[in-house]
Amino acid sequence: MAAECVIGVDLGGTKLLAGVVDRELNVHHRVRRPVAGLGQRELLDVAVAAVEEARAAAPGEVAAVGFGIPCLIDQRRGVATMAVNLPLVDVPFRDVMAERLGLPVEVDNDANLAALAEHRAGAARGAAGAVVLTVGTGVGGGLILDGRLFRGAIGAGAELGHMTIDVDGPRCQGNCVNHGCLETLASGTALAREGRRIAAERPDSALGRALAAGREITGPLITELAHDGDAAAIDALALVGRNLGVGIASYLNIFNPDVVVVGGGVIAAGELLLKPARDEARRRALPPVFAHARIVAAQFGTEAGMVGAGAMALDAVRPGVR
Amino acid sequence: MAAECVIGVDLGGTKLLAGVVDRELNVHHRVRRPVAGLGQRELLDVAVAAVEEARAAAPGEVAAVGFGIPCLIDQRRGVATMAVNLPLVDVPFRDVMAERLGLPVEVDNDANLAALAEHRAGAARGAAGAVVLTVGTGVGGGLILDGRLFRGAIGAGAELGHMTIDVDGPRCQGNCVNHGCLETLASGTALAREGRRIAAERPDSALGRALAAGREITGPLITELAHDGDAAAIDALALVGRNLGVGIASYLNIFNPDVVVVGGGVIAAGELLLKPARDEARRRALPPVFAHARIVAAQFGTEAGMVGAGAMALDAVRPGVR
Repeated sequence: MAAECVIGVDLGGTKLLAGVVDRELNVHHRVRRPVAGLGQRELLDVAVAAVEEARAAAPGEVAAVGFGIPCLIDQRRGVATMAVNLPLVDVPFRDVMAERLGLPVEVDNDANLAALAEHRAGAARGAAGAVVLTVGTGVGGGLILDGRLFRGAIGAGAELGHMTIDVDGPRCQGNCVNHGCLETLASGTALAREGRRIAAERPDSALGRALAAGREITGPLITELAHDGDAAAIDALALVGRNLGVGIASYLNIFNPDVVVVGGGVIAAGELLLKPARDEARRRALPPVFAHARIVAAQFGTEAGMVGAGAMALDAVRPGVR
Repeated sequence: MAAECVIGVDLGGTKLLAGVVDRELNVHHRVRRPVAGLGQRELLDVAVAAVEEARAAAPGEVAAVGFGIPCLIDQRRGVATMAVNLPLVDVPFRDVMAERLGLPVEVDNDANLAALAEHRAGAARGAAGAVVLTVGTGVGGGLILDGRLFRGAIGAGAELGHMTIDVDGPRCQGNCVNHGCLETLASGTALAREGRRIAAERPDSALGRALAAGREITGPLITELAHDGDAAAIDALALVGRNLGVGIASYLNIFNPDVVVVGGGVIAAGELLLKPARDEARRRALPPVFAHARIVAAQFGTEAGMVGAGAMALDAVRPGVR
């Protein structure tokens, strides 16, 4: 009998990543698709096609599919209630996908699943309390409390990116009605915005020259130039890192966790992001609480959501194992 | 045999409140003491004397004493690690008090205990998820998650007052190193500060006349004048209420709770504080999360910490009941 496996899908604000995941959380086949700008129907079509491609490449029978989406999920009904950065409003995602795929489907917030992956097998392994921040298009959050994934009253909990850190700050993005959210000031979107501003102010920097040459100033470009030593790009990352540290300090005080894990696309910057974040958190958090916690990069990096989606699907087909 | 009872003590930043608490959480005898400005030794002496007075008045045998203190508590050792508004640093509070009183002693953060009281028998009764904010000298917080009091890794968790809501805001008070904390902008201390400012700006208001007459502008005075209809006093409460609402919105997004309970001395203002808080939270929180939660006044008001301390002491002498 071929080994049983599942498919984990991370449906992000700009791209979809699907993978065949085995019982040891190893990933065997990956499928990537851009999804920025798609409407709801196209988005669901792309997701179905990606799962079918992964299923065809799986080394064994696919028992279930897990989806992570950057969305409020009503776990009681498997419904994607509201997404800040995707066109999903009150979509019965679990049932629609199970029908179209002919497989059991589980769905959760992508950042919850990143936390699940890091807790099962990554940077938060063994922690009783962990705050996992997924810094990408937005800032997602997952919480491990008393050793378990926390979901809140209707399964929507832990929207950690939508904590106000600047009461008079800029309007948040997408469908969030708030101003000055952590997401507004410490996401990949914020990094690109600050990078563009700094590039315009410092035309002699590598970042400034990239802007002058007509290149799009994106998070990945800023990160690449920063790794190459460009001071302007390093400053853009440090600014976003400090904002992230403001949020981390609050989460340290609120949760007194063992570890804060930072993942998502922006963590490609590594210590260029994490060190300013850690320094700012030290300046703000209650000292015994800061002293207790590690602040580290995610082990699964940009694949945490997909791996966590796989872990959730495996849990569903192995009842009683967890 | 006389009924067994316990003593609950709420050791706040400005006053101590002790009471004899029976198994039904009724309070039989109350002792009040001012504690503002006391040093550590005097503070412990006052606490011992207050407990002895309550014990002498108790209708039955006193089985244990519970203390709530506005402090980080290391529950593993019963140590008051660090208080923002009291002179307690690394005090082995539980063991010192048990020795001096000759009774079993339990200790926890006062705001955690307020949450326990509201969850057991008050405004959060039956809630799976509740955020309880105690708005007094500072802003304390207690969390009920999945139906249980949450304490964090070292029992210090849920310092909900020390979340940044204004990244460039004023320095927080006491031993907190942060700027722009919820406590800085939405505590009784903040109310008095804003009340003084508004009184000076509006000399024709009742609040302004009180200032001109040399009265100290305190939270209780502002609340009294607001209940009497003074627009300046109402505005001071509304300002603090809106700041509180900024924090409540974040906690709604983070925890997706069933209920947010606001207690502490400042809740004497009732809807004059709560309505602006609710309106601001509505403007900022993710709509489905806001729609799910009630935002209400504490049922035990200023006695919640004392009642919760009693509930904790009762739990300790009735193992297995909870």
